[in-house]
Amino acid sequence: MSDAAELVDRVRDGEIALHELEAHADADTAATARRQLVADDAGTTLDTVGEYAIDAADAEPNIENMIGTVQIPLGVAGPLPVAGERADSEKYLPLATTEGALVASVNRGCAVLRAADGANARVTKRAMTRAPVFRVTDIVEAEAVVEWVRDNRDALANAAESTTSHGELVDVTPYAVGDSVFLRFGYDTKDAMGMNMATIATGEACEVVESETTAELVALSGNLCTDKKPAAINAVEGRGRSVTADVRIPNDVVEEHLHATPEAITELNTRKNLIGSAKAGSLGFNAHAANVVAAAFLATGQDAAQVVEGANAITTVEAREDELYASVSLASLEVGTVGGGTKLPTQSEGLSVLGLRGSGDPPGANADRLAEVIAAGALAGELSLMGALASRHLSSAHAELGR
Amino acid sequence: MSDAAELVDRVRDGEIALHELEAHADADTAATARRQLVADDAGTTLDTVGEYAIDAADAEPNIENMIGTVQIPLGVAGPLPVAGERADSEKYLPLATTEGALVASVNRGCAVLRAADGANARVTKRAMTRAPVFRVTDIVEAEAVVEWVRDNRDALANAAESTTSHGELVDVTPYAVGDSVFLRFGYDTKDAMGMNMATIATGEACEVVESETTAELVALSGNLCTDKKPAAINAVEGRGRSVTADVRIPNDVVEEHLHATPEAITELNTRKNLIGSAKAGSLGFNAHAANVVAAAFLATGQDAAQVVEGANAITTVEAREDELYASVSLASLEVGTVGGGTKLPTQSEGLSVLGLRGSGDPPGANADRLAEVIAAGALAGELSLMGALASRHLSSAHAELGR
Amino acid sequence: MSDAAELVDRVRDGEIALHELEAHADADTAATARRQLVADDAGTTLDTVGEYAIDAADAEPNIENMIGTVQIPLGVAGPLPVAGERADSEKYLPLATTEGALVASVNRGCAVLRAADGANARVTKRAMTRAPVFRVTDIVEAEAVVEWVRDNRDALANAAESTTSHGELVDVTPYAVGDSVFLRFGYDTKDAMGMNMATIATGEACEVVESETTAELVALSGNLCTDKKPAAINAVEGRGRSVTADVRIPNDVVEEHLHATPEAITELNTRKNLIGSAKAGSLGFNAHAANVVAAAFLATGQDAAQVVEGANAITTVEAREDELYASVSLASLEVGTVGGGTKLPTQSEGLSVLGLRGSGDPPGANADRLAEVIAAGALAGELSLMGALASRHLSSAHAELGR
Amino acid sequence: MSDAAELVDRVRDGEIALHELEAHADADTAATARRQLVADDAGTTLDTVGEYAIDAADAEPNIENMIGTVQIPLGVAGPLPVAGERADSEKYLPLATTEGALVASVNRGCAVLRAADGANARVTKRAMTRAPVFRVTDIVEAEAVVEWVRDNRDALANAAESTTSHGELVDVTPYAVGDSVFLRFGYDTKDAMGMNMATIATGEACEVVESETTAELVALSGNLCTDKKPAAINAVEGRGRSVTADVRIPNDVVEEHLHATPEAITELNTRKNLIGSAKAGSLGFNAHAANVVAAAFLATGQDAAQVVEGANAITTVEAREDELYASVSLASLEVGTVGGGTKLPTQSEGLSVLGLRGSGDPPGANADRLAEVIAAGALAGELSLMGALASRHLSSAHAELGR
Repeated sequence: MSDAAELVDRVRDGEIALHELEAHADADTAATARRQLVADDAGTTLDTVGEYAIDAADAEPNIENMIGTVQIPLGVAGPLPVAGERADSEKYLPLATTEGALVASVNRGCAVLRAADGANARVTKRAMTRAPVFRVTDIVEAEAVVEWVRDNRDALANAAESTTSHGELVDVTPYAVGDSVFLRFGYDTKDAMGMNMATIATGEACEVVESETTAELVALSGNLCTDKKPAAINAVEGRGRSVTADVRIPNDVVEEHLHATPEAITELNTRKNLIGSAKAGSLGFNAHAANVVAAAFLATGQDAAQVVEGANAITTVEAREDELYASVSLASLEVGTVGGGTKLPTQSEGLSVLGLRGSGDPPGANADRLAEVIAAGALAGELSLMGALASRHLSSAHAELGR
Repeated sequence: MSDAAELVDRVRDGEIALHELEAHADADTAATARRQLVADDAGTTLDTVGEYAIDAADAEPNIENMIGTVQIPLGVAGPLPVAGERADSEKYLPLATTEGALVASVNRGCAVLRAADGANARVTKRAMTRAPVFRVTDIVEAEAVVEWVRDNRDALANAAESTTSHGELVDVTPYAVGDSVFLRFGYDTKDAMGMNMATIATGEACEVVESETTAELVALSGNLCTDKKPAAINAVEGRGRSVTADVRIPNDVVEEHLHATPEAITELNTRKNLIGSAKAGSLGFNAHAANVVAAAFLATGQDAAQVVEGANAITTVEAREDELYASVSLASLEVGTVGGGTKLPTQSEGLSVLGLRGSGDPPGANADRLAEVIAAGALAGELSLMGALASRHLSSAHAELGR
Repeated sequence: MSDAAELVDRVRDGEIALHELEAHADADTAATARRQLVADDAGTTLDTVGEYAIDAADAEPNIENMIGTVQIPLGVAGPLPVAGERADSEKYLPLATTEGALVASVNRGCAVLRAADGANARVTKRAMTRAPVFRVTDIVEAEAVVEWVRDNRDALANAAESTTSHGELVDVTPYAVGDSVFLRFGYDTKDAMGMNMATIATGEACEVVESETTAELVALSGNLCTDKKPAAINAVEGRGRSVTADVRIPNDVVEEHLHATPEAITELNTRKNLIGSAKAGSLGFNAHAANVVAAAFLATGQDAAQVVEGANAITTVEAREDELYASVSLASLEVGTVGGGTKLPTQSEGLSVLGLRGSGDPPGANADRLAEVIAAGALAGELSLMGALASRHLSSAHAELGR
Repeated sequence: MSDAAELVDRVRDGEIALHELEAHADADTAATARRQLVADDAGTTLDTVGEYAIDAADAEPNIENMIGTVQIPLGVAGPLPVAGERADSEKYLPLATTEGALVASVNRGCAVLRAADGANARVTKRAMTRAPVFRVTDIVEAEAVVEWVRDNRDALANAAESTTSHGELVDVTPYAVGDSVFLRFGYDTKDAMGMNMATIATGEACEVVESETTAELVALSGNLCTDKKPAAINAVEGRGRSVTADVRIPNDVVEEHLHATPEAITELNTRKNLIGSAKAGSLGFNAHAANVVAAAFLATGQDAAQVVEGANAITTVEAREDELYASVSLASLEVGTVGGGTKLPTQSEGLSVLGLRGSGDPPGANADRLAEVIAAGALAGELSLMGALASRHLSSAHAELGR
């Protein structure tokens, strides 16, 4: 094995390529050499990028052409009281973000939840989806394929499940558009977010479809999945976990903690989150759920690009007689406690803060808990921002009036 | 000032609160104490979270209740050749992600772009938006407010711009829905992503609206902005930067690098990215643009929750006589090279890899370049994944046929 | 019973109200008197409105406060060759419209279909839906209600089906958003469009839900149905009939009849119907399917407001080696051959032109046929307009070049 | 000229084609012969279709291959009190429909409006749009075209307006997606709905674009218009007229006329029209606005397929201290009082009922009035249906409790 300086020279000499370094040295040495080469190329230094706390080899399943790490500030909000079907905890919620005031805002929301005896949370649907698209000759053939799929669900399940020890096929929904047939496969992927598992399993099922019907696979993902794109199909039918958190807050708690009346918060939710989003042609009817989703995703090793689907959330608020009811329903929150980025050292520690590292008992319970906790965190964030918006106005109005 | 152990004790004694530690010690000591407390509370250790490369004080504008950092593996793809209006470079693109194979995929796409003499890129629109919602009595009053706004654009600009040395108000678009009036303010925020700048400036303008008309502010953000929610208004009218990258790839380059014919890639784009997304009720007509957006955002200190808007992208592909034309148009890419997370050490180094740290000359040029580069990176990612999907099928078909 | 003049006087004297006339005279006399009163009130005459060909009494289930009829010009396009699962016909398609050139355009499209040996058509889904919304206390209760619904599908079916001799409950899909529970009931309503049947049946089922669970009905329609609003849920999951028509047109037929190459039409479909609609944030990816839907709906007594859902259509076009493949997939076409406006004399004659008056054998077959025929008509309209757009450009380009 | 029987024979002998009859006889004779041929072909009779009240020649601009008319029952609701910017009337609203109970429902809503001292209405935006799509080589060329368009608005206006004596170009908005450039032209078309005017004018402007830039026209309509498809661009930016009607209803009037409390109606609106539509991925946040739009469109000669855009409406309801505020905002209502179907005898009489036949003074005032009246009618319909839904529940709940 070479040392970093030697690797740098060999790349400069054109002897080996930048992406081949790991074949010639251990992962840390390779990263060091590559970092040096990239820094030189850019005429800069990459010192902090290179001061990482992990063993580069541990990151090999997660990155190629590694030069180091990016360090995202990590804070905590809470404790966050959650009474879920699975979660029953009052832990700190780890949030990694670069947006100042976000953690403080969620923290304030957590105080509201605590004063209100905690948030409820429920996962109402579980299915990681993958939807290949097939080419057929015409609608007559499309119909035959769809019928075959309806009649041969077991064969598809057998094929799909042969590739995984944990995943279960729970649904295959066909959609035909002209001479394209889409099959939306849905899996229970237990504690894994499950995108890879679903892709591999679906690939196997596609071979059965191709061998038993006239359909020809065009793409293993046909965008009806829908992964990492804003899409109504996810907002309506869900993807990953569909999860809701809610809370009933006594009126005095609202006014004390949020500095606004329940009526003011209700009006704000209606005009902003419902009517404003309606006029915007939005699939997200909330204040800033994506902020909490993104920060919790980064802190716990989730896929940052899936914040897109995490934003498909509806916030509701209702001034009842003695209390304010508030909820946030996330249609498509894609989370896992095993696999992907969850094994990385800092992210794994992030999960540990929640006591949710690794597989749950029964399998799937930890990912359910994580979804419930993130939903409750999103609720905390919604309450806090709505309170800030409602009361900031009051204060500015006061200022304006010279009081 | 106290040391960490002492702080831990004082929190345990209920003497000071967890979020008050920075008042009693320097930022690093406070983070150490808080990390200890959180770890104990969770019955875990947080060692790697605590081994960060930065001075905690530097992160104070970005985080509260800090306990350390999360480290996201950072790789590079490229070099990525971009001929933009501003960008004219062939640099490595830093990508922070936990999704294995992503960097390799973009890297392959970069090779395609290089073999094709590079990508074009153009920023076609610039406006960071903030849209407050006001309450009026009825539509008659709404109309009067809208008219006042149309007639007093200068007064609004003066107020808004009094709060910022860089930002310029470029547009105020009124939308009325019953007794709610939304004003969508758009700003040229130069090299800053500009959400805070736009919010503060809009707050000042709102005071003018409130003092000169009968409208009463309900929320400084009325969701027509639309920040961090999937929304058609962003996909149609843009937010932040609207930016497109495209490339003309000779047919032999397509087949050599992507292992698929231009026709196969065109078909795949049509059935998956266009028809599939259409059927899904999507605002994103692309393969995985959000992946590149997310990874580049993390690497360069952008706001991770704004990956949501970054996913509003349309990919087109066209088999021309001798070449494949491919483009990706991102309607609402919100980026900056100053402010926010861009000042953090590792993120600042990420920008340096691109030569884009700090303000551009003229102001705004660096953020334009960053947008152009990310668009080109997204194009590389689209090409690579489409090639993989198209050819994977070929190979599986071959396998099936025993060849 | 009174004559019209007497009725007019009595209304003027304030003795009876305008809407009570039918209680004092036969339907035609009442309409005559009311027409007179309205005409006088407006200072106009309503002669042609009063010259209707039907017995006003026949219209009583369809209208209140009748003053006559509006007469929509009725033309025919065709013959229209359709090979459906149910339809196997080459009939004239009746189209009622006031848009000049529409019938001629569809007629031209029919000629294309005939020259291409006809269109295929298939109904791929059947379900008229109604989705009440219930209030619950919180998500815990919501989950209990959803579970009850899943466990008691038979009880709901029994209740629902007790109200109808024809309809069958085929599906109940629950959706929870905070403390609102939506149940989307889907029915096979056979040859009826079925909105009323579905509403009544669902009303009965709601009583069971209310008596057996803690849910309280807020509205019998909670807008997840979705009736007469553009909605992704219909575009994705269908409503009424999901139906596709397609055709394979030999290249020479394309050029002879549409005056454009298959490639030009494919390009036009991609840029206009796919990319243009994508950028517009549309749920309709077609050229003008709603035109044919509207005209056929008026001609055959369908509900004109349901043209809204009829517009949720995707048109695809594909230049194959020797032929142009074209399809139009209507996700939510709500049609019937019994009930509603289908019994009115002129509309009933409209159905007769297609041989589709009344119930089919087996029940549902006639409405299926009607859906297949309208889809084929929409396909004819798409082809014709795309040809016109593609060739008009050619001709203007020619003119421009002096040729 | 021939008589009908002779024409029938000549068509049967293959001497002349079905669509050529008007060249051999007057319009009524041609229609009679064609009706006979179609009836024979279908083995049916078409008597009522043939008993129309108009001169077939008058319908020639509106229909081809005419065989008669379809007669839609016409009723009236009202009087409907509207205080618009233009409208200031209390007339009967003509509604043509086959949906029983619709007129009665709107009529009830009109009574509410009268008891509340009438509805306000305002047209807030006017622009009939047409958006051609052009092909360019790449984004660099796209940018040049967009810039040319921005710099040459006058040349485009001159060309466009040379084709029309009334229309004015008010806006051209460019949108680029890869190598497609869309230009959304907006026109003030005065009292005409204006689709044809806009198309012809845009055609002329396109020739200028093609001759002065490298852009090549692919389709005169590129679907960003968006005509007759559900599209967010219309819901956000408007098309035709954007118009709102609202009303402030004293609480006692609500309870007396709608048999429900203001709170119950507010809750219903929130759960159904806002949250339900949100979850459905809808662009229509209303109860049944399309019903009134469709019925008024048919009664006054509007384009029935444009009911699609008419459904882009948001209904809001707010329980204030002593009153219920209610509004409906229709983003894209496309109406005219001249041209199209408005000249047909029965439709012209429909307009006369409203006193809105022909051009207004100033031009455009009549179409504005029609928009205001239809919006107020839609408001009446919303109130009535919401009351029915809210109170029906009460009554069924009462029944259930044995009261």
